[in-house]
Amino acid sequence: MEIEQPPVDRERIIPTGERRGLVLVHTGKGKGKSTAAFGLALRAHGRGKPVLIYQFMKVPSARFGEHRIFEKLGVPIIGLGDGFSWKSKDLDHSAELAREGWARAEATIRSGDHFLVVLDEIMYPLRYGWVPLEQVLTCLRERPTHVHVVLTGRGAPDELIALADTVTEMTMVKHHFKAGVPAQRGIED
Amino acid sequence: MEIEQPPVDRERIIPTGERRGLVLVHTGKGKGKSTAAFGLALRAHGRGKPVLIYQFMKVPSARFGEHRIFEKLGVPIIGLGDGFSWKSKDLDHSAELAREGWARAEATIRSGDHFLVVLDEIMYPLRYGWVPLEQVLTCLRERPTHVHVVLTGRGAPDELIALADTVTEMTMVKHHFKAGVPAQRGIED
Repeated sequence: MEIEQPPVDRERIIPTGERRGLVLVHTGKGKGKSTAAFGLALRAHGRGKPVLIYQFMKVPSARFGEHRIFEKLGVPIIGLGDGFSWKSKDLDHSAELAREGWARAEATIRSGDHFLVVLDEIMYPLRYGWVPLEQVLTCLRERPTHVHVVLTGRGAPDELIALADTVTEMTMVKHHFKAGVPAQRGIED
Repeated sequence: MEIEQPPVDRERIIPTGERRGLVLVHTGKGKGKSTAAFGLALRAHGRGKPVLIYQFMKVPSARFGEHRIFEKLGVPIIGLGDGFSWKSKDLDHSAELAREGWARAEATIRSGDHFLVVLDEIMYPLRYGWVPLEQVLTCLRERPTHVHVVLTGRGAPDELIALADTVTEMTMVKHHFKAGVPAQRGIED
């Protein structure tokens, strides 16, 4: 005899549609776009699901707080960039790295091996035109239906927003940098 | 002889003020308020800093993905509620639990033993008047200067926003629930 489970409250307010992988976008100028993606990765990993994180704006050797922990947990977190944010002298090289990075990310998504794939800061290479938007949209449309993809970064293109299942805009109401408080290790990195 | 470190790019654009604990608020109706707080906790823990997470809306026995991982990492994540979100029949009991929970959280913050204390979903008990706002503001003002506090939940009171260093509003641009896609284990919990 099966023991009846107590009802889950949210079933009451949530439509009973298809369960499938989602495209989630974190955009806007506020904080929390990447950290919320990391929180999702943490949660999925906690449910025993395979997760992979690509970071388009981080160098492969980045060792911020999140890298140390995901490494410890056995969640791959892979920097694809050269730190081109505002110091790169060689934008052709940055563009090439971004394209190579996208090819890797696309293969991962299409393989269906992961429950969740994070494409952190992919909006930068999209905005710079280094990664063609149409390729990303096609990959998302054609991906195996169980794969969740989280894309982060300012300035998500309209076509991506249209395609996404869930879009959150992080808006900066106020920021401590503006009050003269500098970056804090363990908070900002 | 000390080896010179490469310059950190963001020093260029960030004012060189005081390094101290911050009050960070994640509010708004969008997703990512709690997950971004978990991401911050993960990052700080990755830097070897002591972190503690209180959850005002979760029962002590909650075993979502994040609980499993934080437990594995040795980061305390403590549910203070009775799951009163929309099923509680005994609001007096909920209010009492919230007050007891706040007393615990206040003692933790004032002790200065933690680099980062997360007060997840504290806006609910504040909005319901179960935890007096003035007590929370006073505690934040009087806390040891090195303690970072993250407060999450919809409808952050204006006084808290005024006191906070950094406030991010998570705005829902679109949500998969509305498109008929139900909650997904590993994404929503």
